[in-house]
Amino acid sequence: MRFTSERRLDGGVLERRFTLGEIPGVLWTPGSASAPAPLILMGHPGGLEKMYPRLAARARHSAAVGYAAATIELPGCGERPRSAVAEEARADLRRAVGAGEPVDDEIVDRLVLPLVEQAVPEWRAALDALLVLPGIRGPVGYAGGVIAIGVRLAAVEPRIAAALLFAGSFVPRALFEEARQVTIPLQVLLQWDDEWNDRQTALDLFDAFGAEEKTLHANMGGHTGVPQFEGDEGNRFFARHLR
Amino acid sequence: MRFTSERRLDGGVLERRFTLGEIPGVLWTPGSASAPAPLILMGHPGGLEKMYPRLAARARHSAAVGYAAATIELPGCGERPRSAVAEEARADLRRAVGAGEPVDDEIVDRLVLPLVEQAVPEWRAALDALLVLPGIRGPVGYAGGVIAIGVRLAAVEPRIAAALLFAGSFVPRALFEEARQVTIPLQVLLQWDDEWNDRQTALDLFDAFGAEEKTLHANMGGHTGVPQFEGDEGNRFFARHLR
Repeated sequence: MRFTSERRLDGGVLERRFTLGEIPGVLWTPGSASAPAPLILMGHPGGLEKMYPRLAARARHSAAVGYAAATIELPGCGERPRSAVAEEARADLRRAVGAGEPVDDEIVDRLVLPLVEQAVPEWRAALDALLVLPGIRGPVGYAGGVIAIGVRLAAVEPRIAAALLFAGSFVPRALFEEARQVTIPLQVLLQWDDEWNDRQTALDLFDAFGAEEKTLHANMGGHTGVPQFEGDEGNRFFARHLR
Repeated sequence: MRFTSERRLDGGVLERRFTLGEIPGVLWTPGSASAPAPLILMGHPGGLEKMYPRLAARARHSAAVGYAAATIELPGCGERPRSAVAEEARADLRRAVGAGEPVDDEIVDRLVLPLVEQAVPEWRAALDALLVLPGIRGPVGYAGGVIAIGVRLAAVEPRIAAALLFAGSFVPRALFEEARQVTIPLQVLLQWDDEWNDRQTALDLFDAFGAEEKTLHANMGGHTGVPQFEGDEGNRFFARHLR
């Protein structure tokens, strides 16, 4: 891991960009911390620069209550080399959603399974590099999408102690089985009228998780309409499980 | 309204029992309040004395952040005269649930419609009496079950500005139409494995509400297993809408 730039944001949060091998990433740490800060890995749909404003806002919201936050670029997104298979699957998915058709499991598998296979080891490597930095500690939380990545990470990575997942229905059927192995506390955000996701599939996935403590927060509105108060509720969820 | 007893609970909350005509009720007000406290009406399934420990705990939790709370006995419950029709419907319902059979709409209508018809005017009369007391103000919140009573109250009583409803499936079909007329902010608690309620019916009712701001909090466990942290989340929900 190599830091490439650093700056202070309003409120004192330290923002450091880094590369992990070829993968770009960003780390935010609270301005004033007397003790090491628990780390939250922030998931996103890919495209760090496009997602930056929302990610930075979420990181600052977390830093305000004492968390460090970090994210890395997804395979095939942003500045990273494209995968022809993924590009084609993504185009097929957009075509189906645009035409109002159901999205074939086959398209979802073709798009998401290779992404999960490649991304999860990268996020775990990022954890290795982040948790040895001064001022950062586990246990770690995972917050955000891609939900399939969150499911696999929560199932296989013991350093992740709690996850706040953004519900999505583009989840390969194979990952429903892995969801049963997820036993850490979960909070799942579902947008009731999400134009990109099927509500019933999201409810089925919530049902499938093996966690004893899992909470679904369903709110009105479309994909990007998560209410502001859910940010505070996310902080409180992590406060219960990462302290 | 006639006060029949009063006492101070630990923490200074003032608990006053009252009768409104023949209907017993309880009012809790914060120990130290510089300004009038917003009122929360606390719904319950009937049987004030049996429910008292849980109601008092909820009221103290609300009083700790500055709310007054009040409740009244439901028709045909506790010390109030029984209704033969309701008793028979209740027995039919228990028989169906005990046998693991689906509960006929006809039984639900027979049990719940007369209860709603009688209870809602009583709760509105209680509001009339409570809101003229010193130290209590609107807007008012409604919190709890019976959800059918909450639906009707939220639809017809303009002084109720927000409602925290405990999901239940024993809702007459006619009330799904009224749910569309409920436009105040709602938070709905659903116990995912509620032995007394059908999950899909509860989700359908949540879907039916006309409110632009409605949030579903689904948690694991059975009917009485609502996690403790939902008490705090309820307080914050009301803080957003009753202040």
